Amino acid sequence: MTVSDAGEFGLLGQIIPLLPQGPTTLVGPGDDAAVIKASDGRVVASTDLLLEGRHFRQDWSGPHDIGRKAAAQNLSDVVAMGATPTALLVGLGLPPDTPLSWPKEFFDGLREECELVGASVVGGDLSRSDTIMVSVTALGDLRGREPVTRAGARVGDVVAVAGRLGWSAAGYAVLSRGFRTPRALVEAHRRPEPPYASGLVAAMLGATAMCDVSDGLVADLGHIAAASRVGIEIDSKVFDISRQMSDAARALGLDPLRWVLTGGEDHALAATFDSDVELPEPWLAVGIVTAGEGVLVDGEPYERGGFDHFR
Amino acid sequence: MTVSDAGEFGLLGQIIPLLPQGPTTLVGPGDDAAVIKASDGRVVASTDLLLEGRHFRQDWSGPHDIGRKAAAQNLSDVVAMGATPTALLVGLGLPPDTPLSWPKEFFDGLREECELVGASVVGGDLSRSDTIMVSVTALGDLRGREPVTRAGARVGDVVAVAGRLGWSAAGYAVLSRGFRTPRALVEAHRRPEPPYASGLVAAMLGATAMCDVSDGLVADLGHIAAASRVGIEIDSKVFDISRQMSDAARALGLDPLRWVLTGGEDHALAATFDSDVELPEPWLAVGIVTAGEGVLVDGEPYERGGFDHFR
Repeated sequence: MTVSDAGEFGLLGQIIPLLPQGPTTLVGPGDDAAVIKASDGRVVASTDLLLEGRHFRQDWSGPHDIGRKAAAQNLSDVVAMGATPTALLVGLGLPPDTPLSWPKEFFDGLREECELVGASVVGGDLSRSDTIMVSVTALGDLRGREPVTRAGARVGDVVAVAGRLGWSAAGYAVLSRGFRTPRALVEAHRRPEPPYASGLVAAMLGATAMCDVSDGLVADLGHIAAASRVGIEIDSKVFDISRQMSDAARALGLDPLRWVLTGGEDHALAATFDSDVELPEPWLAVGIVTAGEGVLVDGEPYERGGFDHFR
Repeated sequence: MTVSDAGEFGLLGQIIPLLPQGPTTLVGPGDDAAVIKASDGRVVASTDLLLEGRHFRQDWSGPHDIGRKAAAQNLSDVVAMGATPTALLVGLGLPPDTPLSWPKEFFDGLREECELVGASVVGGDLSRSDTIMVSVTALGDLRGREPVTRAGARVGDVVAVAGRLGWSAAGYAVLSRGFRTPRALVEAHRRPEPPYASGLVAAMLGATAMCDVSDGLVADLGHIAAASRVGIEIDSKVFDISRQMSDAARALGLDPLRWVLTGGEDHALAATFDSDVELPEPWLAVGIVTAGEGVLVDGEPYERGGFDHFR
């Protein structure tokens, strides 16, 4: 049975019961629009596209992984503002011959990821398309705190990271060469594990700036440096490079530090804190904010490795 | 110059200054997520996809039209809940050889439509794609009123519509036969003119149910009837069929009433009101809510004409 056999309304009838609805959902899927609680009086919102062939490959990732990843990358953006995710809206384009199991597994993965943070899936849109395409919008609640933007880093602040760095890039490199192991790296590419709780902790500890690492650590710290009009110096010796990563890098003749410094898609968090703040695990101090500009790694500019979608 | 020449960050640098920012934008484009005022304590949210070849054709619609349409169809969903639109988030996938003028004209059209209702464009995502694809999420504020869902119609209520019906379908039929006139119909297909103000008026008059006509009037009234567990009877004689529409229908050998009853994409509004409410222009009473089920036109079921994206 394909999505074409089921039809748009048949498919909606099968999907809507799978969607998690939490206490913040006032009007859920099925009306012109959803209504979600925003008790704080402000709402945090972010949107991302995931396109087949560009952001995922069906021979590398199944629908369940893609659902988890689509949710994770958007939930992570909301968390990176210091907010608690409340709701997702999902646009899904599918070729008509897609098996009906595909959207069901996709929404199952999406639901699992949402449940990690208590978010609901409140609305969406389905369409026929030539290749699979996903757009997700995530909403969140600041619960009375100020948003943690990229613009608040101050000279003397400590720069810290939480979550995996380079794992997804290493997994991508392994898959690109036709390998399926080390499994931990391949799994990390298929499905990021953003450190959701660490974002909230950072906001409560008064992080001065924060962002989600999606373009690569050096590139994303560059965004904080530019927005805050400061420089950032990081010390590459503090990064813990996992055994799997160093083994894979050796086998492929690559530098694992490059994955750590330039790999996106793990959706780690990078933040700056007053130097008096005692950082709890898993936050790891990796550098300092200076009066300069740009990002230096071990005192030198690091070759640009961020991802440009049009280049 | 193409979007590939400009690169993702170059393109963002050109687009972001074009985006309208109103007083509800607390953190605008350029951070991990936007922050928008939601003074009501609730937020209304809706998302839609517009795909090249499926929802628009580049030989029929220019980027400015597509920008207006992408905004209009989402703003209309928010208005159909009785809310005031506050913000849009926009995902845009473009082939790398797209001229740089394309996204600039697209966002210019999007901005013009947003200005009609005072909404801001607070965030988005850009990606490379094989064909042009747009995803828009609209947010809105209920300003203390209850949302007008599809589920509140009561037996004895009056059924009314505001806005154009069938114009876009007539324009599509004309374009499909290779004609470019009547111009008013072709323009209506390229760019809907949702009756935004009428949605707010309906909410203030206590509309018991409301929806945006995007699947066709009979299909969308069917959604209200199903959600409200009532029947709806409409009288086809009350519809005003424009001269352009009757002329075009005659030339094409088609029935113009069919456009009115089954054409979507004009984003008219359909609502139900207590029979005591005096309906202001342009609201037009077209039928009544009954204890039956489904929708009858002049006492008979009308052949299903709604649009199924997978069939």
